[in-house]
Amino acid sequence: MTDKQDEQADRNTRHQERMERKKNVVDEKIARADQDKGLILVNTGNGKGKSSSGFGMVARALGHNMQVGVVQFIKGSYSTGEEAFFRRFPEVQYHVMGEGFTWETQDRNRDTEMALHAWQKAQVMLQDPTINLVLLDEINIALKYKYIPIDEVIHALANKPFMQHVILTGRGARTELIEIADTVTEMKEIKHAFKAGIRAQQGVEL
Amino acid sequence: MTDKQDEQADRNTRHQERMERKKNVVDEKIARADQDKGLILVNTGNGKGKSSSGFGMVARALGHNMQVGVVQFIKGSYSTGEEAFFRRFPEVQYHVMGEGFTWETQDRNRDTEMALHAWQKAQVMLQDPTINLVLLDEINIALKYKYIPIDEVIHALANKPFMQHVILTGRGARTELIEIADTVTEMKEIKHAFKAGIRAQQGVEL
Repeated sequence: MTDKQDEQADRNTRHQERMERKKNVVDEKIARADQDKGLILVNTGNGKGKSSSGFGMVARALGHNMQVGVVQFIKGSYSTGEEAFFRRFPEVQYHVMGEGFTWETQDRNRDTEMALHAWQKAQVMLQDPTINLVLLDEINIALKYKYIPIDEVIHALANKPFMQHVILTGRGARTELIEIADTVTEMKEIKHAFKAGIRAQQGVEL
Repeated sequence: MTDKQDEQADRNTRHQERMERKKNVVDEKIARADQDKGLILVNTGNGKGKSSSGFGMVARALGHNMQVGVVQFIKGSYSTGEEAFFRRFPEVQYHVMGEGFTWETQDRNRDTEMALHAWQKAQVMLQDPTINLVLLDEINIALKYKYIPIDEVIHALANKPFMQHVILTGRGARTELIEIADTVTEMKEIKHAFKAGIRAQQGVEL
């Protein structure tokens, strides 16, 4: 063998050893994780991906022929790609809270009324064992502004069907929610195109 | 008016003022962001949501009747919900790299060969202006292990069709990639069900 071949062979052996160790660690972890359970997931933080990750899980669930419920607590005046797309599927119950972002409406009473109406729709889903996954998109905003009582949300999550997954998104997730959640991710903005003067793009933000 | 009604009215007025200020700030930012551009997005970090956020954007794009390309650089032996779901759509070109996670195969030569094959598929998509959005799922892992040359990836991204969006996911994103990206999000793990002994769940991780 040439020196170069030698070096390459060494590298491959080291790689194999490293991967074997990694496989052992991963296999052990997998063996320890042996429970099934409907999860409460929270996507929060100031970065991109909180809602889109929720919609990715909706797609995943549909791939397993699951039934899905979606309630969007905040809606712009534009129609979104995710709404146009997921409304096509009979397995998806889709409810969008009426009219505008909170800072566009500036009417606390009307916002509260609409948020509570959306929350009623969500509560029905959270009591229905035939719905396998529920996405409460941007509910954290409604909780932050106290449009919806946090106690009611915690109570509904504590009493949901055991195998039902629930995803709650939006920045500024309440501590009470983080405490009872199984998986919490902070989407942290490292860079955002918007700040460089690029507006929201179809397929990405819309 | 009673004291309670007074208090409520005050609260609503304060809310309205706060929201008006917020609307002004947001409106100004929106006015400044007036460019359209295909974006390079990177989802990295140790938390959940990197891939699912990418698949959420795929759904969004399909809602706008866009054409989509997906290359998954890492695949387990199980079939995933996202693959089962998105393969249903003729608007989606879907390529999955053959066989197992890297720590399951432990063969660097074979892994490199497969990663390069997947990268060839990706390169074709990155030169095709009829594809509006390309998801390179878990490519960061392939770049981290140097299965794919980072220079080639940077070059391909720099020369992609102007309006094409590209999403690159996986932990440990290379600095070179973060530098040229428009939007970078770090998915940070705050809590994960897996660590509490709950295995990967259909619709959530699978």
